[in-house]
Amino acid sequence: MPDLVVSGTIGLDDIQTPFGKQNDLPGGSAIYAALAASKFCQVGLVSIVGADFNAKWLNQLSQLIDTEGVQISGQTLRWSAKYDSALNEAQILETKLNNIVRFKPELPEHFRGDSFHLLANLDPDKQNSLIDQIAPRQRFVAADTMNFWISSKRQGLKNLIKRINLFILNESEARQLFDTPNLIRAGGLALEFGPEYIVIKKGEHGALLFSKQGIFSIGGYPLEAVVDPTGAGDSFAGALIGYLANQYRDFTNLTVSEPMMRKAMAVASATASFTTEGFGLCILQKVTLDEIKERYEILKKLHQF
Amino acid sequence: MPDLVVSGTIGLDDIQTPFGKQNDLPGGSAIYAALAASKFCQVGLVSIVGADFNAKWLNQLSQLIDTEGVQISGQTLRWSAKYDSALNEAQILETKLNNIVRFKPELPEHFRGDSFHLLANLDPDKQNSLIDQIAPRQRFVAADTMNFWISSKRQGLKNLIKRINLFILNESEARQLFDTPNLIRAGGLALEFGPEYIVIKKGEHGALLFSKQGIFSIGGYPLEAVVDPTGAGDSFAGALIGYLANQYRDFTNLTVSEPMMRKAMAVASATASFTTEGFGLCILQKVTLDEIKERYEILKKLHQF
Repeated sequence: MPDLVVSGTIGLDDIQTPFGKQNDLPGGSAIYAALAASKFCQVGLVSIVGADFNAKWLNQLSQLIDTEGVQISGQTLRWSAKYDSALNEAQILETKLNNIVRFKPELPEHFRGDSFHLLANLDPDKQNSLIDQIAPRQRFVAADTMNFWISSKRQGLKNLIKRINLFILNESEARQLFDTPNLIRAGGLALEFGPEYIVIKKGEHGALLFSKQGIFSIGGYPLEAVVDPTGAGDSFAGALIGYLANQYRDFTNLTVSEPMMRKAMAVASATASFTTEGFGLCILQKVTLDEIKERYEILKKLHQF
Repeated sequence: MPDLVVSGTIGLDDIQTPFGKQNDLPGGSAIYAALAASKFCQVGLVSIVGADFNAKWLNQLSQLIDTEGVQISGQTLRWSAKYDSALNEAQILETKLNNIVRFKPELPEHFRGDSFHLLANLDPDKQNSLIDQIAPRQRFVAADTMNFWISSKRQGLKNLIKRINLFILNESEARQLFDTPNLIRAGGLALEFGPEYIVIKKGEHGALLFSKQGIFSIGGYPLEAVVDPTGAGDSFAGALIGYLANQYRDFTNLTVSEPMMRKAMAVASATASFTTEGFGLCILQKVTLDEIKERYEILKKLHQF
């Protein structure tokens, strides 16, 4: 049984940044999240790829991650985006959902234990169907989303939030979903839906954690050269839950504490910073736990006064 | 002799936010900075007002601050701005420089000791003329600026930066002046001009401190209801230098240490948060040292992991 099950999309990305253009990069929310999480714990993956997806690459992935939940059908999701020199939000040039449209995510039998779950960005209806499968043994479920679902499936998304332990979204999504420019208010409103924890990711400015115990703020790891921010948010989520799944592996009766969430946020910020330093997965793939720990320690000093 | 001399503008502001519209509010960089600093130390003010400025108000101010350096001439600077619901950057509707154009800032004799100095936002040529007056006994000089001077007096501003100990600017100004979208790079480039310390203010996201000792990041104090962000940056600068001037009052041979700068950043973030909670100066005027300390302690917990 994996410590953590990550579900979401696998895609092929065409990415343009001021540092170049690369095509057909393996990407998608689940890949970034699962790879980041795999630095900390045993990960099981639930997703879908098409026959056009590089089999060798998938095979490599299965050395690191349990890919039994990855279905093969149709054509792979394709995503094409461009970043301007500020390297902030992606300007999406094209999305072809392809096999994602008919994807029915299903947990393999051995993923139905008391693993942690990360529902990375995916149609909220499919995320809800995953919770139906998890529900009999729900331990800790986190979910991420994106602006597209906030516009098109707001009600499904709100139903989802009520069923999870941790809701993760970014700054502009938080403003959009809770209809306020103020992030502190958005975080408070999100908590009212029921999750114990809310995380609002702020890109280079770090992230905020909201809970009944108050607010925690982690800065972004200071980087002079961001090359491609694609997947940074998914890596953040993956590292966050991967770290928690590892910490609580042998303590199935314990709930996730707020002090542990704070540490996980710092680990996540450190991990996500690596993702942005190269195109696609190239840096995240090879980064080691020691390198992540080093940046964690720097983040610790970054805030001390 | 004041512990800190603050120079800059005094103006009359017309401000519109989603929470209302108020006219003829006393404002300007020097007023916000000096009032914030006055919570921590004895402040001397160098500025100019017109005959149209409310004499009673100026008289009240002189109970708190040494106003001997405030000249009275012509018509007061007028500034009119509007904020949208995000309450981020001001949309400036009109600026009438009025008496600022011919203003020749001059330090009264008893301001020429070894006080700390804050050159709040003003024409860099006038800021440079102030440094000429300070230079024989320069101890610690901080300067702030604004986008207008970056476009119109870039060279004068760069000359200024070379002569000061601390340069304070905001996020968009840093990107504009150092011609990079990356704040970490901008901070590094700013340091190369010579100041020991660079502070980049990021509004709700807090602020960054750069020095040879590395980077420090302070979060914004979490506020659910920002009413008017006018003067928050000036209050930040004033509180920062006011706190330092107080800490080093009896240690004229000591240089400002990086750990002390970190504390000052937190004090500044706490103080500036009050400014934004009401129109103009209304909250900053009445906030107490104890209330600032309370938010300082919350900021400390906000970052702990």
